[in-house]
Amino acid sequence: MLLLAGCYILRPNSFSIWESITAFFDKGIKDLGVQNAYFPLFVTENALNTEKDHVEGFAAEVAWVTKSGQSELDRPIAIRPTSETVMYPYYAQAGAQSPETEIWIRSHRDLPLRLNQWTNVVRWEFKHPTPFIRTREFLWQEGHTAFATKAEAEEEVLQILDLYSRVYTDLLAVPVCKGKKSAKEKFAGSLYSTSVEAFVPATGRGVQGGTSHCLGQNFSKMFKIEFEADDGSKQFAWQNSWGLSTRTIGVMIMVHGDDKGIVMPPRVAPLQVIVIPIPAGSMSDAQRAELTSTTADLVAQLKQAGVRVQCDDRDNYRPGWKYNHWEVKGVPIRLELGFKDLEKKSAVLARRDTGAKETVALTDVAARVPELLEQIQADMLARSTAEFEECKETATTWDEFMAALDRKHMVLAPWADEEEIEEDVRKRSATAEAMGAKTLCIPLEQPELPPGTKCFASGKDAKNWALWGRSY
Amino acid sequence: MLLLAGCYILRPNSFSIWESITAFFDKGIKDLGVQNAYFPLFVTENALNTEKDHVEGFAAEVAWVTKSGQSELDRPIAIRPTSETVMYPYYAQAGAQSPETEIWIRSHRDLPLRLNQWTNVVRWEFKHPTPFIRTREFLWQEGHTAFATKAEAEEEVLQILDLYSRVYTDLLAVPVCKGKKSAKEKFAGSLYSTSVEAFVPATGRGVQGGTSHCLGQNFSKMFKIEFEADDGSKQFAWQNSWGLSTRTIGVMIMVHGDDKGIVMPPRVAPLQVIVIPIPAGSMSDAQRAELTSTTADLVAQLKQAGVRVQCDDRDNYRPGWKYNHWEVKGVPIRLELGFKDLEKKSAVLARRDTGAKETVALTDVAARVPELLEQIQADMLARSTAEFEECKETATTWDEFMAALDRKHMVLAPWADEEEIEEDVRKRSATAEAMGAKTLCIPLEQPELPPGTKCFASGKDAKNWALWGRSY
Repeated sequence: MLLLAGCYILRPNSFSIWESITAFFDKGIKDLGVQNAYFPLFVTENALNTEKDHVEGFAAEVAWVTKSGQSELDRPIAIRPTSETVMYPYYAQAGAQSPETEIWIRSHRDLPLRLNQWTNVVRWEFKHPTPFIRTREFLWQEGHTAFATKAEAEEEVLQILDLYSRVYTDLLAVPVCKGKKSAKEKFAGSLYSTSVEAFVPATGRGVQGGTSHCLGQNFSKMFKIEFEADDGSKQFAWQNSWGLSTRTIGVMIMVHGDDKGIVMPPRVAPLQVIVIPIPAGSMSDAQRAELTSTTADLVAQLKQAGVRVQCDDRDNYRPGWKYNHWEVKGVPIRLELGFKDLEKKSAVLARRDTGAKETVALTDVAARVPELLEQIQADMLARSTAEFEECKETATTWDEFMAALDRKHMVLAPWADEEEIEEDVRKRSATAEAMGAKTLCIPLEQPELPPGTKCFASGKDAKNWALWGRSY
Repeated sequence: MLLLAGCYILRPNSFSIWESITAFFDKGIKDLGVQNAYFPLFVTENALNTEKDHVEGFAAEVAWVTKSGQSELDRPIAIRPTSETVMYPYYAQAGAQSPETEIWIRSHRDLPLRLNQWTNVVRWEFKHPTPFIRTREFLWQEGHTAFATKAEAEEEVLQILDLYSRVYTDLLAVPVCKGKKSAKEKFAGSLYSTSVEAFVPATGRGVQGGTSHCLGQNFSKMFKIEFEADDGSKQFAWQNSWGLSTRTIGVMIMVHGDDKGIVMPPRVAPLQVIVIPIPAGSMSDAQRAELTSTTADLVAQLKQAGVRVQCDDRDNYRPGWKYNHWEVKGVPIRLELGFKDLEKKSAVLARRDTGAKETVALTDVAARVPELLEQIQADMLARSTAEFEECKETATTWDEFMAALDRKHMVLAPWADEEEIEEDVRKRSATAEAMGAKTLCIPLEQPELPPGTKCFASGKDAKNWALWGRSY
């Protein structure tokens, strides 16, 4: 075998979406004062084992390097599944065991420390791999910050969650629900976790879109990340970590895709307009030359207007083949320019998302296209948001809950917020065809909870509304 | 142990240099038509072994994953030392063994295929690790392209080499020599390799700064990267690969650094100006307020002018401590604003590179600083270039050659261009204190070689001039 299962390639058409996300989010966190850095791919066994809950959460999925060349290593070395245990020794007293390092955090003046890195991580999952969504290696950013106070840390958790939400809504035209993860679903080692949750109507499954964790002092106590406060006392730092991965690309593809292939939201589309000249057999040489020069002129005008545009003038493919080719790739607008269009001094703009066509005077193309791209972006978000809302049902009893799941929907239901109940729901809701449901999140925006409301699953007093669903 | 030997961190001050290089080079290759993509970190044993010379060149340094969680893997999996063997199965017929992949290259119309990725790679080296220069993991970009003809491939080799050269000269203010690698020093598996070579006067050692390889048809034959030509015949693609790594940062630091620490060229400095207000004990409250507002105003003006500027107004450190602190980090200009400056409505600009100070009227600061930054950039390149030339000697005999090496210089010498001679020179030039010399490159720009010129080392007829040196 030359290729490895569970690892996928990001080809240019999808990788460029990641580049758009990177540019947007990187600017967002730099505006907040976060700096980029890079820490090693490898974790020592000791560092990985430092925080007990954390290692228990990841141990089964860790890939171990045990050999270099033909030599066995003295000790196996882990590949990061996430970098808390790689980075925090450097932040801390604990790292000073090594002569190579200095202690980064000594005084409250060294705080906040806010670092981010764009990296690959490896989780050797046993669940069935799904391109973009569940892969043994993926790309992400991971932020790792330390503050003097809990209040500052908690403020950042929500600032980052908001940026994640905007990646989905503003760039990918995908609605998400912001919320807190349940005790069962939170990040291994965090005090609490928040997330943005998306939903794929076609499969009826929720998908965690990005997570922003308040780690509290769990890691700072284990790694001895202590600082001297204003009053001279020693205190443990308050820490956060937060990550957004190439899963974003998969969510976008699944939410917008149709039977023909990908549908790209214009803001992240590597190519926004494909221009296809359509010569007719009856055209004279002069007419052919005019078609070529008009096409070139339109491309130049669109580029000038800041549009990402390309012309497909290959003469060895027929127009129908080209239409299909660019539809599969999801290019938002196809501009057709035929013999008759040329006579009428107009062109046809065809939308990838709706299939709608409009005829535009050649002199209006450069003004109309940017407008239409914005319209497509807005329409895509409006449609996906309406569908998201349609797929979200409210249930207050077990039967209503199961009926909604059967309709492949998410379910907002009041519950008693206990780990045992969630495990019980998962088991009871599993069927021969479908896995059990779990909490996607406890939405930040809570419906009213009238006193005396009971948990849909346990009959105990409900504590809050959770959003439940089958999920990736 | 919590930390691992041979792996280093890129902290924000150095990582930001990499961000500058990334932005510059990424734009450069996109202008050439290269697209970014991402391929897996892992290589199967079979793929790694496909090109014989290549695997021989890397086998001793490959890190192997043999376990996930508690389970042994069926077969060990390698971590990429470079990605030829990861990527080319996908380019080719050979990759079609897997159901997950399609064949990317079938026809001449699928060429050129020009992909690049920004990744980490791992080489478990046994040589002594040196931060930035020789590390077990490093960041780089690797371009992997395929063409229908040798001529197109060769044109690209030099276009990329030119971009690498400009990263050094235009961004890092470091001179390099462009050349071809000798048979002994070329990339394992390439037809031939080119490189840019830098030199560190302080240590008297050359350092390979980036490599652009013509792979010829070596890999395409092994991986069956075949295309149907215009005339219907089957042909093997012509391939290149090229890489530039975070070693760039180390070269920059070593070439420009002084006893006080780093000296940043303005174009890549994350912070170009540090503003330090210097309150005096005798100042009234009104005067202190004026100092604060004037400082804030200068910072705002400089930001407006596009300068990366920050104010250090911490009241718990003395000015002298701050001067030192920012000198260590290499900030190109320190702007001092004291009580007397304020009275004279002027400020002092101190250069990090030369230590020179100048007094500037407050109203001229925003105009003068960008000018001075450009001047510093130009001066740094001029100085490093003069030093590079001083360190380059010409030798035509063995004795001259050794004398130049003893002076910690590079040596340009005529030779017969045979692998055995290079090995012989390495052994004979090694001393108790210093490693043997090798060819850094055969410069593209060759001095005249009069007929009858003999090889400095073997006495045979010389074929060309090579640049020799001890090296990293």
